Amino acid sequence: MKHEKKFAELKTLLAEVNDLNNAASVLGWDQATYMPNGGAPARGRQLATLSKVAQEKFIDKKIGKLLDDLLPYEESLPYDSDDASYLRVTRHDYERATKIPPAFLAEYNVHAAETYQLWTEARPANDFARVRPNLERTLDLSRQLADFFPGYEHIADPLIDFADYGMKASSVRALFAELRSELVPIVKAIASQSPADDSCLRKHYPEAQQAEFGARVVKELGYDFNRGRIDKTHHPFMTSFSIGDVRITTRVKEDFLGELLFSNVHEAGHAMYEQGNDPAHEGTPLAGGTSAGVHESQSRLWENVVGRSRGFWEHYYPILQAQFSEQLKGVPLDEFYRAINKVEKSLIRTDADEVTYNLHVMLRLDFELQLLEGTLSIRDLPEAWHERFESDFGVVPPNDSDGVLQDVHWYGGVIGGAFQGYTLGNVMSALFYEEALKAHPEIPSEMKQGKFATLHGWLVQNIYRHGRKYTAPELVKKVTGADLTIKPYIQYLKTKYGELYSL
Amino acid sequence: MKHEKKFAELKTLLAEVNDLNNAASVLGWDQATYMPNGGAPARGRQLATLSKVAQEKFIDKKIGKLLDDLLPYEESLPYDSDDASYLRVTRHDYERATKIPPAFLAEYNVHAAETYQLWTEARPANDFARVRPNLERTLDLSRQLADFFPGYEHIADPLIDFADYGMKASSVRALFAELRSELVPIVKAIASQSPADDSCLRKHYPEAQQAEFGARVVKELGYDFNRGRIDKTHHPFMTSFSIGDVRITTRVKEDFLGELLFSNVHEAGHAMYEQGNDPAHEGTPLAGGTSAGVHESQSRLWENVVGRSRGFWEHYYPILQAQFSEQLKGVPLDEFYRAINKVEKSLIRTDADEVTYNLHVMLRLDFELQLLEGTLSIRDLPEAWHERFESDFGVVPPNDSDGVLQDVHWYGGVIGGAFQGYTLGNVMSALFYEEALKAHPEIPSEMKQGKFATLHGWLVQNIYRHGRKYTAPELVKKVTGADLTIKPYIQYLKTKYGELYSL
Repeated sequence: MKHEKKFAELKTLLAEVNDLNNAASVLGWDQATYMPNGGAPARGRQLATLSKVAQEKFIDKKIGKLLDDLLPYEESLPYDSDDASYLRVTRHDYERATKIPPAFLAEYNVHAAETYQLWTEARPANDFARVRPNLERTLDLSRQLADFFPGYEHIADPLIDFADYGMKASSVRALFAELRSELVPIVKAIASQSPADDSCLRKHYPEAQQAEFGARVVKELGYDFNRGRIDKTHHPFMTSFSIGDVRITTRVKEDFLGELLFSNVHEAGHAMYEQGNDPAHEGTPLAGGTSAGVHESQSRLWENVVGRSRGFWEHYYPILQAQFSEQLKGVPLDEFYRAINKVEKSLIRTDADEVTYNLHVMLRLDFELQLLEGTLSIRDLPEAWHERFESDFGVVPPNDSDGVLQDVHWYGGVIGGAFQGYTLGNVMSALFYEEALKAHPEIPSEMKQGKFATLHGWLVQNIYRHGRKYTAPELVKKVTGADLTIKPYIQYLKTKYGELYSL
Repeated sequence: MKHEKKFAELKTLLAEVNDLNNAASVLGWDQATYMPNGGAPARGRQLATLSKVAQEKFIDKKIGKLLDDLLPYEESLPYDSDDASYLRVTRHDYERATKIPPAFLAEYNVHAAETYQLWTEARPANDFARVRPNLERTLDLSRQLADFFPGYEHIADPLIDFADYGMKASSVRALFAELRSELVPIVKAIASQSPADDSCLRKHYPEAQQAEFGARVVKELGYDFNRGRIDKTHHPFMTSFSIGDVRITTRVKEDFLGELLFSNVHEAGHAMYEQGNDPAHEGTPLAGGTSAGVHESQSRLWENVVGRSRGFWEHYYPILQAQFSEQLKGVPLDEFYRAINKVEKSLIRTDADEVTYNLHVMLRLDFELQLLEGTLSIRDLPEAWHERFESDFGVVPPNDSDGVLQDVHWYGGVIGGAFQGYTLGNVMSALFYEEALKAHPEIPSEMKQGKFATLHGWLVQNIYRHGRKYTAPELVKKVTGADLTIKPYIQYLKTKYGELYSL
């Protein structure tokens, strides 16, 4: 049949693009883990070339022609068949990619690399002015990027859509407003209590023992070391080179037990998502995760809903205590459990607890929207940050390093769409977990015995194996039978922190 | 000027090819060092894609046209100017590459990958029959490959020329015959003596201490860790991703002190060659080493001429003895020196001492020539190996694993040109060292004080910085003022082993 030959041709072309992109990921991983300093200049060039060649090959008119020719075949198939999904996802990616002129992309990439470099110097120097002209250009380029996708309601919409397909400024705003009205009273109520004591986490915990325990935990959760590994980096991340090679990185603080462990569980959550893809999707556009939000829902589900739950530690705390017998001597489980769930108004998003975390995200989203609208200028951003932070957190950041300069996102990418996925992920983590419990009420009691196979299996079956087949809204509908709702997440927070702080 | 624009265009195109090839090297390094097992299938595909895309981009007619257009410019320049050399070397590479049809290359690569896989199973199983049909096809493909370069004197000539540009079967044969007539009496004379005692090397040497000493030595020789690193692999190798990132790998045997140390020095010799390239050649076809033989001359110079010399150990032996005080207690320097230079008729090329090593190479070269000529069949190869080995070494290999199956070269590449570089390297190591001594007679006394900067500096100046600018014959002429000769090498062996064995 004619379409079979064309489909095979399309698959061959896309497999090549996929290989080039995965090769770039290997080079990126090496850059962050083992590359000697002297390798940096050439590595930047090599990464730029791989991304350029992959992009050229992807936006080739041959691919557009094949997609056109295969449309009748796609339309003849059930929506969620592998072939129809392959073609639908590719068509979406192709239409997006071909709207961005290669010359713009090249200019943008050079600018982003330069800005990132400046930021690495500006942040430790607390010198926003150093990076400000670049950030102004980033804002300008972000607007240009959005304008390649005309017909939007809000200029941020195309940028939000890149990361969280199906969402736009108005829908994220509405969801965040609802969430905020629920969160603020919880934060206030907790703030009126005496703060939790986390001194038990802040003793000397030798690196090697932390690493051993941290690897053991993620292995038992379901992270497959035959198809992955853990290395140390400055900032932890997950990266994937194929379904058979999904790596995580971690970092350790010998004076804080929470760092390596929860970083491992978080990144392993991302990794189990990609390791759990249907093997039939290997090397195709269907492999991976479907959106920033759904990806984050998996890191958060494992890190917070599971990894910071009392049931989880009923199993692991005795093991941890045996491992660190001196440091945890006389520290009861409940004290440890309160310590790992300490709520406090911290300056830094990535250090924030699961309650206040979302306020950090909302602040950033609002600034992104205002910057793109033109109602806030880059020049006024540091001051606006200080004011908003004080009003949301009751704390004034002492400098820009721990204020507007703290996150890499705007300095290494676009302004717009960079942050909402984190909170969408929190919301979905509770939503998906609730569905897993409906199907398998035995999950909490299994967890207390250190058994995670039922939960992991449900996630593989209902989320991981689909990869990019369904969009985030489709997936939510498929899994829960309804549209995205914050209710289970609010319920989760109220129950957990209600107990912890006797609210 | 018009040629400037064209030259800039050529450089842009070739930089891209260079980046893709270096990216493939990163993936290969990762495959050998850290890749989890599950990554293997996708990695094979990714490497194949990178090599295919790089090749397609290199043999593009645009490059041929630019080379044609730039010929008058090249001819207007001094032969060894950077620009003329860039164009000359590129032209040579381009003419070679465009003579090989892409379809042949694709078929060959698939066959080579499959044969390599079979060999990894056949060698431990001592099962030559398992890989024989593939090896017959390899021979056929090797002949086809040679036939893309008609006009040769011997069918092996194009294959030898790939690795050691400027050499051919007749010139290698003549050189080897001369060398053989000198070597055989030395081997005989040594064999008539009682064998050296190397039991001092065969005690328990803990890995961590070996690694520390091995890293210290190569650092002091001149290997730059800011532009390199050492990792463990099954088979040690050197690989380069840019002049700023030249890595080596090593392996350790806790029951044999010689393994890690000399492997490090050997690979660091290769690496110092590439680290020593003129930085102006970064990312261009002039970076790298000019031939298999010259590359090997540097690994051998540092490993054998320096690293197995008495002067070297006058400095390092007290340090080694302090590091391994128990194992080396009461072992005098001379006993250690004899141990690391023990001559014996071993079955395995890579374990062979520097005297008998060349006999292993000669045996392989002769078989390559006979196989290509058709005077020996693959079927008869194991038997021929046994006979020749017995006649050369007085030992019959007990099996094929340690006979015809021992080296990866034929099973992962072509038959022809795979081995002569090792012996050419030995010959050139002594030749270049002799020149360095002429220029700097203080080198041996510096070595006794652990100082290597004069030797390293002379090698950078006279060999390393040139990269691929001069062919091996040109380089030999430039450095020594004459054509390649075995005299310094024979003199070196006679002096060293004459003393060691009181010949």
